[in-house]
Amino acid sequence: MVRGVSTEGSTAPSSTTPTAQAADLAERLGDLRREYADLQARGLRLDLTRGKPSAEQLDLAEALLALPGEGHHTAEDGTDTRNYGGLLGQPGEPAVVARVRAVLGRVVALARQSQQRLGEVELLGVPVDQLLAQGNASLTLMYDTIVQALLFGVPGSERPWSREEQITFVCPVPGYDRHFAICEELGIRMVTVPMTPDGPDAEAVAALVADDPTIKGLWVVPTYANPDGSVVSEAVARRLVSMPAAAPDFRIFWDNAYAVHHLTEHEAKSANAIGLAAEAGNPDRVLLYASTSKISLAGSGVAFFASSPANVAWFTKHLGIRSIGPDKVNHLRHAQFFGDAAGVRAHMRKHRGVLAPKFRAVVDILDARLGDAGVATWTRPDGGYFVSVDVVPGTAARVVQLAKEAGIALTPAGATFPYHQDPNDRNLRLAPTMPPLDEVRVAMDGVATCILLAAAEAAAAS
Amino acid sequence: MVRGVSTEGSTAPSSTTPTAQAADLAERLGDLRREYADLQARGLRLDLTRGKPSAEQLDLAEALLALPGEGHHTAEDGTDTRNYGGLLGQPGEPAVVARVRAVLGRVVALARQSQQRLGEVELLGVPVDQLLAQGNASLTLMYDTIVQALLFGVPGSERPWSREEQITFVCPVPGYDRHFAICEELGIRMVTVPMTPDGPDAEAVAALVADDPTIKGLWVVPTYANPDGSVVSEAVARRLVSMPAAAPDFRIFWDNAYAVHHLTEHEAKSANAIGLAAEAGNPDRVLLYASTSKISLAGSGVAFFASSPANVAWFTKHLGIRSIGPDKVNHLRHAQFFGDAAGVRAHMRKHRGVLAPKFRAVVDILDARLGDAGVATWTRPDGGYFVSVDVVPGTAARVVQLAKEAGIALTPAGATFPYHQDPNDRNLRLAPTMPPLDEVRVAMDGVATCILLAAAEAAAAS
Repeated sequence: MVRGVSTEGSTAPSSTTPTAQAADLAERLGDLRREYADLQARGLRLDLTRGKPSAEQLDLAEALLALPGEGHHTAEDGTDTRNYGGLLGQPGEPAVVARVRAVLGRVVALARQSQQRLGEVELLGVPVDQLLAQGNASLTLMYDTIVQALLFGVPGSERPWSREEQITFVCPVPGYDRHFAICEELGIRMVTVPMTPDGPDAEAVAALVADDPTIKGLWVVPTYANPDGSVVSEAVARRLVSMPAAAPDFRIFWDNAYAVHHLTEHEAKSANAIGLAAEAGNPDRVLLYASTSKISLAGSGVAFFASSPANVAWFTKHLGIRSIGPDKVNHLRHAQFFGDAAGVRAHMRKHRGVLAPKFRAVVDILDARLGDAGVATWTRPDGGYFVSVDVVPGTAARVVQLAKEAGIALTPAGATFPYHQDPNDRNLRLAPTMPPLDEVRVAMDGVATCILLAAAEAAAAS
Repeated sequence: MVRGVSTEGSTAPSSTTPTAQAADLAERLGDLRREYADLQARGLRLDLTRGKPSAEQLDLAEALLALPGEGHHTAEDGTDTRNYGGLLGQPGEPAVVARVRAVLGRVVALARQSQQRLGEVELLGVPVDQLLAQGNASLTLMYDTIVQALLFGVPGSERPWSREEQITFVCPVPGYDRHFAICEELGIRMVTVPMTPDGPDAEAVAALVADDPTIKGLWVVPTYANPDGSVVSEAVARRLVSMPAAAPDFRIFWDNAYAVHHLTEHEAKSANAIGLAAEAGNPDRVLLYASTSKISLAGSGVAFFASSPANVAWFTKHLGIRSIGPDKVNHLRHAQFFGDAAGVRAHMRKHRGVLAPKFRAVVDILDARLGDAGVATWTRPDGGYFVSVDVVPGTAARVVQLAKEAGIALTPAGATFPYHQDPNDRNLRLAPTMPPLDEVRVAMDGVATCILLAAAEAAAAS
């Protein structure tokens, strides 16, 4: 076993690059090649690419498939959820709002059962009028927000974003590939800032945003970020919502995808970005997204949008031309299934029971195989769906290739960076949720071998 | 009872304007005012505005609310419908496709159960690869198609539509207000052509489209059109798909919303526009939309998009950036509920049982009250959701106002025209599906009184 330095205890990749002990590693190249040949000989067919829930997790919400049940189509406020309408919900019924709790964890607490406009939140502090429930994917809400901004501008825009010569988004890296794909498709330039254990590097973001009026957006996954698992601290959240912005219509796309997706007893609290932004005098800065995709059913959940009253009115106005209303029966189904905030939390503890052993296996195997090798750092996430590994610079693509040739599918190197370009060819995103625990263990042992071999090859070549 | 000419037997408004027998009518003004005062005194509160299914119709699909049921989440091809994915369906399984029939009437016949890509059609002739099943509303698919065209252009475009100086759509009138609202929101100029009993006036369309390269689109509701109930004949369909177009990227938005929504034994067959377009050498011209909104549940159905392989690939490419996949559980639920094409047809006969008496009541009352008066023409639809009435020119808004003041809500005059401007202030759209039969009768009797009074007022003033 080669020796080196682990990053035990960190929840995000260390900012120092792992330095392989080149001589040691080069010496071990022969042994590692034999070990890899043995790995290949096993004829594995394993997959760590998919950030999807496992069937065991989906089974937890199986009762949804028989809900709401025949004869139970009427929401508590009397709405026939089967029919058209409800784009805006039914205003002025606080008693109903208070009664009907279809809480989706920290994100959505009070819901008008089966109405699209869901309600206020014990933890988030978003008033009922500032929260919309829509279709099955928050990704589409993010895409549609940017499309509306391109076509019409947002509140505070001088013109539609598509009429600007250049639009730029700040992208913390490593980050979520689908955020970057949206920017790429829509012709939005991306500039990167590093992630820290407390979220995006706020000073780096602030420096860019203060000076560059083409910067209209910042992507943030505030809780258990994809892929590095970091959680935006209150201080970072305050900085991001209060920093000066050269563009009057700068927006933070606050994608709270993993708000309640805890893996340990330490349950991170998401900062109330919308409330903090209002306090800071920038009420329209934050656009919040969330969904039940990884709470209930991944393809058949409910997605949410929350923001300031001005942003919600803007979004709703365009939405009303595009749609008569969302699938209210699915809203009702979810409200019935979860009941209240405690129901969501209890449900997420069941998810944790399935997922925590898989994440523990990933980290334990990395510790055991690479703990002394100095060839990688890795995260120890308290929640979310990924483990982020930084390998010896210049070897990430080689690790993925070696793994592939040994029958272990890994997310392509570069996927966590804009344009699929990791400038250091260093970051790997591991997704251990989908395969059974046994497969996670076998795959991770193989990945460790590939990381070591790639590092040894690099050391021998240098 | 005043005397005049009815349009008995026509299925679309006559092109001749009803000419009130002015002297007769003016004489009756006093009587009609008394009749109207009696109507007002009844304190009605009725609504003929809503093109929504009634609760009785929705009850027909109540079994959907307990489907797919616990443990029944796997599609016949083995897909776990609860998880992410399925944007493209799973290719290469014709046996499965052939087996799994989740037919949605004439529009969608063979479906890969619970996959988004639904399949070929005994009646429409669209191959499986050319049909997508998506979310809960075809309106959003139309909106999104135009947005994608604005941002990227369609196959054959020289540039994104938003970079053209002017985009124009041809709008047959009277037509569907939400089509016009999409154009208005997106800055698309609208020019009108008249409807005929066989659909849009094809020669008028052809003359415009041949000469004007800014014309990129034509709205068509081919079957039981909203509001006039006309059905596009095979000859008109052939003309529309084969006529020369000045714009190389001209598209027909073929919104087959009422494909299987028959009200009589005479079941109209929709022309196979996609197949005819391919035959005519314009394979990319037709974009077809449909949904189960008025088949299963209005807010919780399944919407469809069909077109040429090139258009489907184009649409899917952008869709794949925006979404990981549609709600496949809802697809599975529908497949289970309908079973096959015969199941859809049988279901629609139940709808007909609910709706036919309401439409008969509308027409019977118009015949009885206005048949001799020469103050209106009206449609006798064989399907769809509306009755279209042309009143004395210049009185439609007055009729709506009179009805409102008697407690009967009618769709605003002008709603069936772009920009809400009926140049003749003549067309009314009546929606009898939602209210119970008794209310339809009472409301229609009141509407007849309002039409007569408005005509008499106009005659007296002239």
